[in-house]
Amino acid sequence: MPKAVFHYFPVKALGEPIRLLLSYGGQEFEDDRVPFDKWPEFKSKTPFGQMPVLELNGKVYAQSVAISRYLGRKYGLAGADIEEDFLIDQYVDFVNDIRTHAAAAFYEPDAALKAKKHEENVKNVYPVLLGKLEEIIRRNNGHLVSGKLTWGDFVAAGMFDHFKMMMQAPDLDTKYPNFKRLQETVLSLPRVKEYVAAAQ
Amino acid sequence: MPKAVFHYFPVKALGEPIRLLLSYGGQEFEDDRVPFDKWPEFKSKTPFGQMPVLELNGKVYAQSVAISRYLGRKYGLAGADIEEDFLIDQYVDFVNDIRTHAAAAFYEPDAALKAKKHEENVKNVYPVLLGKLEEIIRRNNGHLVSGKLTWGDFVAAGMFDHFKMMMQAPDLDTKYPNFKRLQETVLSLPRVKEYVAAAQ
Ligand SMILES: N[C@@H](CCC(=O)N[C@@H](CS)C(=O)NCC(=O)O)C(=O)O
Ligand SMILES: N[C@@H](CCC(=O)N[C@@H](CS)C(=O)NCC(=O)O)C(=O)O
Repeated sequence: MPKAVFHYFPVKALGEPIRLLLSYGGQEFEDDRVPFDKWPEFKSKTPFGQMPVLELNGKVYAQSVAISRYLGRKYGLAGADIEEDFLIDQYVDFVNDIRTHAAAAFYEPDAALKAKKHEENVKNVYPVLLGKLEEIIRRNNGHLVSGKLTWGDFVAAGMFDHFKMMMQAPDLDTKYPNFKRLQETVLSLPRVKEYVAAAQ
Repeated sequence: MPKAVFHYFPVKALGEPIRLLLSYGGQEFEDDRVPFDKWPEFKSKTPFGQMPVLELNGKVYAQSVAISRYLGRKYGLAGADIEEDFLIDQYVDFVNDIRTHAAAAFYEPDAALKAKKHEENVKNVYPVLLGKLEEIIRRNNGHLVSGKLTWGDFVAAGMFDHFKMMMQAPDLDTKYPNFKRLQETVLSLPRVKEYVAAAQ
């Protein structure tokens, strides 16, 4: 299988779903974790001045969700028809909406504003949105869609630790057991498990 | 053809690409423009507490990009293979990244911060990102991908006026003629043209 190179910062965030997908697909890849001080140099070489970026078969792929969907289709993790594909896309975009809320607070440089945004999220945003996500996963028997494994599960699973960190919520596991279970399901898949063990 | 109902605020923003796609597809739809004062009442009835929301064939669809992709596939506006589909997705996500930057400034409630964000965008963000988008469209002969019409063009075209407004950039037309041309191409399509004329 041709070699791939995956470029991202040395964090999970937007990169982890793709690392998990590549591992699941049995795609050998160089996990290029670009140190923050090397980023300015590399930035101008990327398609949009951002990471993640995947090099595969001589092509360059950017945009994290687009890459996840692409790999998902390659590895047989898409929906059975356009209705199921739609549901995966819809829930993945919802997961990203939650991420956007958390990131807005987490990356806020002004300390007072950061505290205010975090408080607002904890009070009014996370309970509602994570409650909805939890219910979606419960209804779908531990998955995002149709009670079966799709690439959407990789996006949600890859985001779990990132959410926990950004939301300062060590209790995410117990508060949202179905979301946690989805993460465990994905991380225990053959090959994914090996990647996770090796990446520790 | 079964009747559809499209719910969104009385603005273009995230709704317009979907209105253009429904029109192109010859899908009769009720263009339900929910007034802002009626929104609190309707909010809890939507899947994620947000709009746009599309009702079609007895199902409810949320998340603007997921809906656009779904309609695009229905109406023959997807890529020829997963590589082309990837490119559409990648560029659509890039267009949305630009939108996110503009929205962060435009919807900032603090006046001083809003001015600062706007200035930063005008100086360092818009020229770079819109320059990239312009070049992508130029290279693809007036489209986002492969020199042909795809649902991605509808997303970009539907965003043009919204960008112009949020960026306070009446000169967008002359500065980015390929982007403007893409908008004109989409808005002149049969049925889309009729919708645009009727919606004025
Ligand atoms: N929509 C893009 C967003 C990518 C993004 O925000 N990347 C950040 C890291 S998470 C980045 O590269 N930041 C460095 C920079 O903008 O200079 C995606 O999903 O891939
Ligand atoms: N990711 C969603 C975002 C939807 C969104 O932000 N909707 C806004 C209007 S543009 C909304 O419904 N705001 C009202 C609210 O949140 O109460 C999508 O693309 O559909």
